[in-house]
Amino acid sequence: MTLESPEFQIDWDRARRTGVPEAIFCEPKTPAQIDAIVAASSGRRLLLTRLTDAAYRALAPRTAAVLDYDPLSRTAFLGERVALTDSGIGIVAAGTSDLPVAREADRTLEFAGHRARVVADVGVAGLWRLLDRLEELRACRVLIAVAGMEGALFSVLAGLVEAPVIAVPASVGYGVAAGGKAALYAALASCAPGLVAVNIDNGFGAAAAALKMLRVGDR
Amino acid sequence: MTLESPEFQIDWDRARRTGVPEAIFCEPKTPAQIDAIVAASSGRRLLLTRLTDAAYRALAPRTAAVLDYDPLSRTAFLGERVALTDSGIGIVAAGTSDLPVAREADRTLEFAGHRARVVADVGVAGLWRLLDRLEELRACRVLIAVAGMEGALFSVLAGLVEAPVIAVPASVGYGVAAGGKAALYAALASCAPGLVAVNIDNGFGAAAAALKMLRVGDR
Amino acid sequence: MTLESPEFQIDWDRARRTGVPEAIFCEPKTPAQIDAIVAASSGRRLLLTRLTDAAYRALAPRTAAVLDYDPLSRTAFLGERVALTDSGIGIVAAGTSDLPVAREADRTLEFAGHRARVVADVGVAGLWRLLDRLEELRACRVLIAVAGMEGALFSVLAGLVEAPVIAVPASVGYGVAAGGKAALYAALASCAPGLVAVNIDNGFGAAAAALKMLRVGDR
Amino acid sequence: MTLESPEFQIDWDRARRTGVPEAIFCEPKTPAQIDAIVAASSGRRLLLTRLTDAAYRALAPRTAAVLDYDPLSRTAFLGERVALTDSGIGIVAAGTSDLPVAREADRTLEFAGHRARVVADVGVAGLWRLLDRLEELRACRVLIAVAGMEGALFSVLAGLVEAPVIAVPASVGYGVAAGGKAALYAALASCAPGLVAVNIDNGFGAAAAALKMLRVGDR
Amino acid sequence: MTLESPEFQIDWDRARRTGVPEAIFCEPKTPAQIDAIVAASSGRRLLLTRLTDAAYRALAPRTAAVLDYDPLSRTAFLGERVALTDSGIGIVAAGTSDLPVAREADRTLEFAGHRARVVADVGVAGLWRLLDRLEELRACRVLIAVAGMEGALFSVLAGLVEAPVIAVPASVGYGVAAGGKAALYAALASCAPGLVAVNIDNGFGAAAAALKMLRVGDR
Amino acid sequence: MTLESPEFQIDWDRARRTGVPEAIFCEPKTPAQIDAIVAASSGRRLLLTRLTDAAYRALAPRTAAVLDYDPLSRTAFLGERVALTDSGIGIVAAGTSDLPVAREADRTLEFAGHRARVVADVGVAGLWRLLDRLEELRACRVLIAVAGMEGALFSVLAGLVEAPVIAVPASVGYGVAAGGKAALYAALASCAPGLVAVNIDNGFGAAAAALKMLRVGDR
Amino acid sequence: MTLESPEFQIDWDRARRTGVPEAIFCEPKTPAQIDAIVAASSGRRLLLTRLTDAAYRALAPRTAAVLDYDPLSRTAFLGERVALTDSGIGIVAAGTSDLPVAREADRTLEFAGHRARVVADVGVAGLWRLLDRLEELRACRVLIAVAGMEGALFSVLAGLVEAPVIAVPASVGYGVAAGGKAALYAALASCAPGLVAVNIDNGFGAAAAALKMLRVGDR
Amino acid sequence: MTLESPEFQIDWDRARRTGVPEAIFCEPKTPAQIDAIVAASSGRRLLLTRLTDAAYRALAPRTAAVLDYDPLSRTAFLGERVALTDSGIGIVAAGTSDLPVAREADRTLEFAGHRARVVADVGVAGLWRLLDRLEELRACRVLIAVAGMEGALFSVLAGLVEAPVIAVPASVGYGVAAGGKAALYAALASCAPGLVAVNIDNGFGAAAAALKMLRVGDR
Repeated sequence: MTLESPEFQIDWDRARRTGVPEAIFCEPKTPAQIDAIVAASSGRRLLLTRLTDAAYRALAPRTAAVLDYDPLSRTAFLGERVALTDSGIGIVAAGTSDLPVAREADRTLEFAGHRARVVADVGVAGLWRLLDRLEELRACRVLIAVAGMEGALFSVLAGLVEAPVIAVPASVGYGVAAGGKAALYAALASCAPGLVAVNIDNGFGAAAAALKMLRVGDR
Repeated sequence: MTLESPEFQIDWDRARRTGVPEAIFCEPKTPAQIDAIVAASSGRRLLLTRLTDAAYRALAPRTAAVLDYDPLSRTAFLGERVALTDSGIGIVAAGTSDLPVAREADRTLEFAGHRARVVADVGVAGLWRLLDRLEELRACRVLIAVAGMEGALFSVLAGLVEAPVIAVPASVGYGVAAGGKAALYAALASCAPGLVAVNIDNGFGAAAAALKMLRVGDR
Repeated sequence: MTLESPEFQIDWDRARRTGVPEAIFCEPKTPAQIDAIVAASSGRRLLLTRLTDAAYRALAPRTAAVLDYDPLSRTAFLGERVALTDSGIGIVAAGTSDLPVAREADRTLEFAGHRARVVADVGVAGLWRLLDRLEELRACRVLIAVAGMEGALFSVLAGLVEAPVIAVPASVGYGVAAGGKAALYAALASCAPGLVAVNIDNGFGAAAAALKMLRVGDR
Repeated sequence: MTLESPEFQIDWDRARRTGVPEAIFCEPKTPAQIDAIVAASSGRRLLLTRLTDAAYRALAPRTAAVLDYDPLSRTAFLGERVALTDSGIGIVAAGTSDLPVAREADRTLEFAGHRARVVADVGVAGLWRLLDRLEELRACRVLIAVAGMEGALFSVLAGLVEAPVIAVPASVGYGVAAGGKAALYAALASCAPGLVAVNIDNGFGAAAAALKMLRVGDR
Repeated sequence: MTLESPEFQIDWDRARRTGVPEAIFCEPKTPAQIDAIVAASSGRRLLLTRLTDAAYRALAPRTAAVLDYDPLSRTAFLGERVALTDSGIGIVAAGTSDLPVAREADRTLEFAGHRARVVADVGVAGLWRLLDRLEELRACRVLIAVAGMEGALFSVLAGLVEAPVIAVPASVGYGVAAGGKAALYAALASCAPGLVAVNIDNGFGAAAAALKMLRVGDR
Repeated sequence: MTLESPEFQIDWDRARRTGVPEAIFCEPKTPAQIDAIVAASSGRRLLLTRLTDAAYRALAPRTAAVLDYDPLSRTAFLGERVALTDSGIGIVAAGTSDLPVAREADRTLEFAGHRARVVADVGVAGLWRLLDRLEELRACRVLIAVAGMEGALFSVLAGLVEAPVIAVPASVGYGVAAGGKAALYAALASCAPGLVAVNIDNGFGAAAAALKMLRVGDR
Repeated sequence: MTLESPEFQIDWDRARRTGVPEAIFCEPKTPAQIDAIVAASSGRRLLLTRLTDAAYRALAPRTAAVLDYDPLSRTAFLGERVALTDSGIGIVAAGTSDLPVAREADRTLEFAGHRARVVADVGVAGLWRLLDRLEELRACRVLIAVAGMEGALFSVLAGLVEAPVIAVPASVGYGVAAGGKAALYAALASCAPGLVAVNIDNGFGAAAAALKMLRVGDR
Repeated sequence: MTLESPEFQIDWDRARRTGVPEAIFCEPKTPAQIDAIVAASSGRRLLLTRLTDAAYRALAPRTAAVLDYDPLSRTAFLGERVALTDSGIGIVAAGTSDLPVAREADRTLEFAGHRARVVADVGVAGLWRLLDRLEELRACRVLIAVAGMEGALFSVLAGLVEAPVIAVPASVGYGVAAGGKAALYAALASCAPGLVAVNIDNGFGAAAAALKMLRVGDR
């Protein structure tokens, strides 16, 4: 194996080109690969996603030392933090089980300088919990909704607000809901127009989309 | 083919044994088979389901003459009608497209002597349509809910009422909703406890279940 | 993450609104989340489901001390027990492997004050085992049937009794039966009218539906 | 396209080598191809399967004239008929809708010289219909069972008889039963040991297997 | 069937509440239902989608007369047209086969008063076709991308532009691409962050989402 | 849980009624359940299947002591062994990876008193390995074929022999072959008539079917 | 719809860049679109695929007049024919039903100047048909194999020859074989190393791959 | 179990017959089986694939001692190494996560005497990384492309080069990409003609195909 290129090529230019900061998806990478990527960053800012607690602890001490790690969302920040502004992004989680994915979205926004409002445990089987928060949700400019099981939250929410709603199906559930496809299909098949979806458990992608939507107004 | 038995054996005893009238599922049967079944009934009551308009018109005139046919639900009644009572069964349809399935449930109940209340076009993308009818729905003793697409109606409704809710997923939709599996999985994966489901488009089965539930109180 | 709401909102009002006691689905929750929920209950009654033995042992001692835990069904009761009545609910399990799911249904009913009759190991490959118990089964007002593999029990049973039958497909099996979809589809595709289904392994949901059906007669 | 071989090569030797007569699967063939195959047979015996009524009528008159066609099973015989013996093969069909597939098996056996006993409309939702015929079924040496929908007949039957049971799932049904996979999985996942399955709607294959089983005793 | 409500309830308030005009999904509706809906509109504006040419021709003459119908997109406008502005929305279609879906998005935007730029036949198998149009695409504020087959266009495009990209998988293709799931999964699994997806062939939904994104800047 | 029946009911009569010895599927059972079943057998013969090495070692010493355990096939014999005869059953395994399943079939036959001939590692990618054994295979009265991956062995073998061939798809493989469905579908879709299939990895079921086929000749 | 580009952009440069002639996939195109493409070609050579007989007859007469159409393969040539050479490409079809797909591959090669050898009806259920042609097949430099049903031909063939084998699964079959996925998975899961696959029914793609392989030797 | 043959039969003749060296797929084999195979090789050359680090360490010391093991690709060489030549094979990996599969292909080629060029981390979401390497890639005679997630690399690459491209979908990803089917379908549904695919994660098979393609020119 004459490796003609280094094993990884970080797309440092992504933020400028697409408006989304470069992130490293750690799940399929070895600790050694992550150590090397962090070492190569030379202090530049980088977001690490899907870094489990076990994987974080397997990193070299010098890597772990420079990371700001959050176990719930399995994310880490490398480099300086930026000041936060409230740009009107809301994150809605149907149940407590959806919080890791919601928090991944939240941390991604935080890394990019945005403070989101998180509204949790408002699943539609107890509809009043959602309706009680309606004014707050209607005030948001962009909404990220996280739900597993049957994903009914997506349609109900999108029918109630003016903001674009980004559905993140969560792989929470069992039987026909296992793996998150029931929630994903609920998002895609929704009769509420204007709802869009990202991949199952993809809190990072939802945040990236929200960032791009925020910039629509600035151009 | 030495047919050791007649080709069909109608289970005339079913109503007594299980509380549900015997019905003939016409979809895979030839006109000649249906003609023969009707001829063999000797005036006893029989419900025919999935009898399309084209199939109805292909029947022998003497068969068609004794049937009370409804094209929307694709059902026909054979034999005397029975008087109707309102037993507190409600049928909720998410959209106008769900009416054929809702009507199949309604006709089955009618054949068995029950007048149901039908509430149509109350999909959750416009939540207020459903909430406006809430009192009426809460007064029902058993509810049948018909919805295609993402089937979010099932969870919302079941979270609001005390009555058992029987979900009938409808094969209304396209893309991931085609065929009705997205709606079926929404019903099964629902976080609203006590929701039960029947097969896609099975309005007859939902009515049969409702009939059995009504009798729970009588025993 | 400025969490605008507490992480969980228990729907204490559910029993009154829908007839089913509030339950906590523990599978995707951390021990700390369960500890917090129990602490917040202030002595009110709560049912915990899908609490594995390992998860139960990871709870804080003060949490475990107030729970009445059953390892087979992976359920726990919080709060006072209520007196039991026999309301005519039967639970039928096709094989011994289906007992954990059957027991989850049974414990849910027990929590709500109902003593069910459980009939086990009556799979249809040895049909006489089921027929021997027929009189007993026909005396039930509502039946919950649990079966994995090919789920043939559902159709046979529903064709023999007057009571509504709630099918709970079990994720027991291998090859095409793995995960429980073969049994689920058998329940949904059944030619026995009036059979209804809940999600795979959802013993709790079946019990909740049975509770709602019992109340049909009281209204 | 320099076709190096004729377009078809009939395996005239199959009967001798495998015990099953050569058959032509007509569904994907053009009338011209079928005409050519029949012309090439030079009076030898041949079974044609999946020859729809429309396809039969599109054949050249000289082809149609030499075929003994049966529209229900969509089969045709070419060549002399052989005398029939009763070898103890039974064919059981769950409903009238399963008769086309059952008849395909029956015609295949007839072509090979065996008169089968056909027992129809004994689906398990009305269990007594099957139990009434039990003695007759137990007398069979090999059983072919045809069922669509949830296919519960397979397990019940195989648990009651000593003969090998060959399950033929039928593509009869809708919703989750559409296409026959629910019935196929029921056959494969059956808890009744010794049940074997062939492809959906494959009455011919079931008959071929039955023929091979009959010969086990002769060797 | 005592229909307690009219069969349909148009959500005239939707535009105000969610920013998307009310649209009627005509595919599962009968001509009579569409006639009734149009009659009930009393001159208010309404968008009709999935109205095939055959369905359009089956409408009552007085209905057809008031509709502005476009056969390629299968859409019709009811009510006054509004003046168009260029708001920076681009629609990219991978191949000519994707034009009906692209045109549905375009017509939806047109109905809402936006003139979109449409760039067609820029599939990535001939990458230079896309790169030649890059400057134009980068100038857009929101992009809708329509692609069937393997959907590789979504990832390539989203990696090149700053605007949010809404992927519309098209049901164009055969074999593993049939039905559009290969393209849908390509959109969802994309390694280009910020890409969002709507249901297969849902050009209307993509336009609705684009409209909501445009308004993010106005709030 | 008032358990109305003991938790298990062994079908001691099965051998007489169906020709297949009663077997206990151990996979979903706890060690305590297996201990109880063995204790209840009172010396009668019983076959235990899917008893992993770990499960075997978790049994009570008095249970393990009376079992004749084979780790490769994960089977155990309880009770006296019977003398073996060669009845002409052959077992063909495509690769060494298929041996556990082949051995489960072999042990089941052994338990029932039959000595099978096992031919291993004759996958069709090296066709001569199979052709070299052809005479031996043609001498068999019944053949069991075990293959994972693409399962091409089934068709090739069934086209070469007169005996019925029972296909056992093995869950050997990765990617599209993972779980065994590719091999299962190859068996069911085979163009070799008379091939029958059992569930994936079901060596026991294949042996049970072979036993039933042997008896066809004795009746 | 301000179409910024013409609706189609033919990639005339493809042959030079990738070695495969530009082809037009006609299935999802309207007659008018095909007429326009042909008109725009200005005499350049173009291959049209998936042009059904009905679609061909719906073309404008001036379009049809310049096309060399073949109904079996549903292909048409536009422009001058080139002289043919035998480059050692063989096409093997398992059954007569696979000929349309085999012929599509053959026509594509012919358009590119290669005369292929076609060997038909050599399915493995009658293995000797294939072995009889072995010498001929071994002489080929590249082989295209077309098979539906269980696709066992792919593994057997690839295990016997030195040439690369390109598997084209055909959508021939019913039940589990319907649509061609069983054959596709057989090709991909094959234990014969070096076998490669293209999409179901993609005779054109297989020919394109064969052309690229031929050129490997020339570079 | 009278094992009529040794448990394994190594196809030492494969290299001569098909141009691909014999390889042992170790995943489903026990350490004892691998030890036996190595012992039986008598110094002949053999490639071992899917030998995980844990499995390698479980081998007998005398086995491990004679193996040249590479943990990244999970491959081992037995027997003498051969000298390497650069034959113009390129291996392209979309991300660092695809390297294990890419390395399996690379090691297979190395075992057969070919030095490949490996180009890593050129996923299309940052298109310029790929375009920067275009000249190098266009110089290759055969290309192997490894990609997980949405697999968009396959189409883009195949549209840019003249060499045949062998797609190896990688089981890298989550949600709809889990298991690699999204990438596989992207390869098969590609609109870039001439692209061929092997099974998910099958780096060995891709290398075997590349070896066969190289030999096309030599014959």
